[in-house]
Amino acid sequence: MARREYRVGVLGATGAVGTSILEVLGSRDFPAAEIVPFASERSAGKSIEVGDSLLKCRVPSPESIQGIEILISSAGGSVSAEWAPKFVEAGAVVIDNTSYWRMYDEVPLVVAGVNSEAAEHHRGIIANPNCTTMVMMMALAPIHRAAGLERLILSSYQAVSGTGQRAIEELRAQSAAILAGEEVAAPDVYPHQIAFNVLPQVESFKDGDDYTTEERKVMAESRKILGLDEQVGISATCARVPVVSGHSESLNIQTTEDLSPDDCRQLLAAAEGITVSDSPAEGIYPMAIDAAGIDEVLVGRIRRDPGHERCLNLWLVGDNLRKGAATNAVQVAELLAENGWLGNRA
Amino acid sequence: MARREYRVGVLGATGAVGTSILEVLGSRDFPAAEIVPFASERSAGKSIEVGDSLLKCRVPSPESIQGIEILISSAGGSVSAEWAPKFVEAGAVVIDNTSYWRMYDEVPLVVAGVNSEAAEHHRGIIANPNCTTMVMMMALAPIHRAAGLERLILSSYQAVSGTGQRAIEELRAQSAAILAGEEVAAPDVYPHQIAFNVLPQVESFKDGDDYTTEERKVMAESRKILGLDEQVGISATCARVPVVSGHSESLNIQTTEDLSPDDCRQLLAAAEGITVSDSPAEGIYPMAIDAAGIDEVLVGRIRRDPGHERCLNLWLVGDNLRKGAATNAVQVAELLAENGWLGNRA
Repeated sequence: MARREYRVGVLGATGAVGTSILEVLGSRDFPAAEIVPFASERSAGKSIEVGDSLLKCRVPSPESIQGIEILISSAGGSVSAEWAPKFVEAGAVVIDNTSYWRMYDEVPLVVAGVNSEAAEHHRGIIANPNCTTMVMMMALAPIHRAAGLERLILSSYQAVSGTGQRAIEELRAQSAAILAGEEVAAPDVYPHQIAFNVLPQVESFKDGDDYTTEERKVMAESRKILGLDEQVGISATCARVPVVSGHSESLNIQTTEDLSPDDCRQLLAAAEGITVSDSPAEGIYPMAIDAAGIDEVLVGRIRRDPGHERCLNLWLVGDNLRKGAATNAVQVAELLAENGWLGNRA
Repeated sequence: MARREYRVGVLGATGAVGTSILEVLGSRDFPAAEIVPFASERSAGKSIEVGDSLLKCRVPSPESIQGIEILISSAGGSVSAEWAPKFVEAGAVVIDNTSYWRMYDEVPLVVAGVNSEAAEHHRGIIANPNCTTMVMMMALAPIHRAAGLERLILSSYQAVSGTGQRAIEELRAQSAAILAGEEVAAPDVYPHQIAFNVLPQVESFKDGDDYTTEERKVMAESRKILGLDEQVGISATCARVPVVSGHSESLNIQTTEDLSPDDCRQLLAAAEGITVSDSPAEGIYPMAIDAAGIDEVLVGRIRRDPGHERCLNLWLVGDNLRKGAATNAVQVAELLAENGWLGNRA
């Protein structure tokens, strides 16, 4: 039997995440009858290499969006706010990478392998969590199922590629200037110099809030994905480090049931999408440079918090562009295709 | 009345911390009758600029150490193990920057301004805490006094200058190679590439321990300095980031008494040695690049952990070579001089 194939659109195809989405669609051999890259006016007419083909970017318009069955969107939030409903109207299921739709009750927020079943009951839009949340969910979900999450304290070490190509250029340019002993140009992408520095700010502070929008996302999205009630305390501190790719996360996890480091290691080793990398005395632990380009989340430094008998410390690293964004979006598309969950299922 | 002046030795004078010690002795106008730099055979005969003078390095020997009244030592642990007692024997009080003597019961572990009084009852050796501990103590001590520490969870973002000059060179060389698209030479100082990477390992894993020696130091030294009993839980995760100077720390602090973020801010603003830098919406928060060369510890991002009513999150940054090492050592020397605490006081 010939497998059913889909007309897949990628909105924001020329960006850092869009490029990863096109790669992952190819490398995972997604059943695509056609792949249509969409981009802004700026990239209109530009051609993108996808596998062996050279595909011309389209600008979304009432005409150009017709016939798309699955749209993976990774343009900005405002583009998504405007165009996601139009693509849905035109018959597509939209898998959206922006934060815009994530916290709407009727929009499933899905991490493939964690709450895949939530993808079934969509009304046209399915949201992909924030990259920091995504990396964390991969390790937290099995732990929560086995021992029950009671409390969670995160400190992140986030790469600049999460911000996009311009941030990578800014880090490189600043680093080069400093190494050459030259003056660093005024920062453009970040509020301060990122090269050889750490910024305790990822995204922005809104309306007098003392948490950043990134930290709020991580806390709220984790709760939604794992279905945690208000009793479970979550605290996030998100920092940007001078790393190109790969988010690192230091997690302190308190569970309701006892979970030994060894049991936790076994649990995570058996979980899908995770690679346990935990022989620290041999220098084996997760590192940002090892995460670049891989789909698994790396977990290590699993050990008991000496201050609490039901607390574990963990060190996680994931490629923020792959499992943190592109890979998960394609995995959600696979869920739709494999289970016949296209069309409004609510 | 002419002020009493002291013959001050600096052991490890050519290293990164040693250089800072010489700078700080000058900038704080320490009452030194003479400053004598000591270094290893390798630097024998080398001259060091101190203020307006050019001083010749001495190699420590039974003869060369005579007459030193205060020795600030920042050579390695094994050098300190051998030479600190000999300097004491020759009549000096030794303020030691290595980890070797810190946890001996009879050796005071002193953070000036935190537990200054502990410096009085020395038996010739006074230890300077680890730089990560030091930065943290500056903020924790006032909080502990006001509201009582109950639990502490630290994730650090540590600069390479803590490791020494060779680590700075390694970070620079690796960064330059990567920016030039060249292959990175096998790492020499760290177990893995540090440029554009994060290492969840600071120092080493000993005897099958799943915490590093650095993490153990931070936890044990904090307890000793603040006199915390075993009921107070402390957990540390120490990571190395590609930053030249300035340790950043993400702290989650649980107190026995309620302490609001505003009260905490006021408390810290009034504390000595701390600068509160906490207007995040205006981009004002502590950053590694702002800490380089200053003696104060910067504190910001002070906010309630949404998951616990008696928990606060804080972001700290301190210059690991200044308050983290050199400045505190000189401040301890000042305590000895001002209070007449030279000589064996136990």
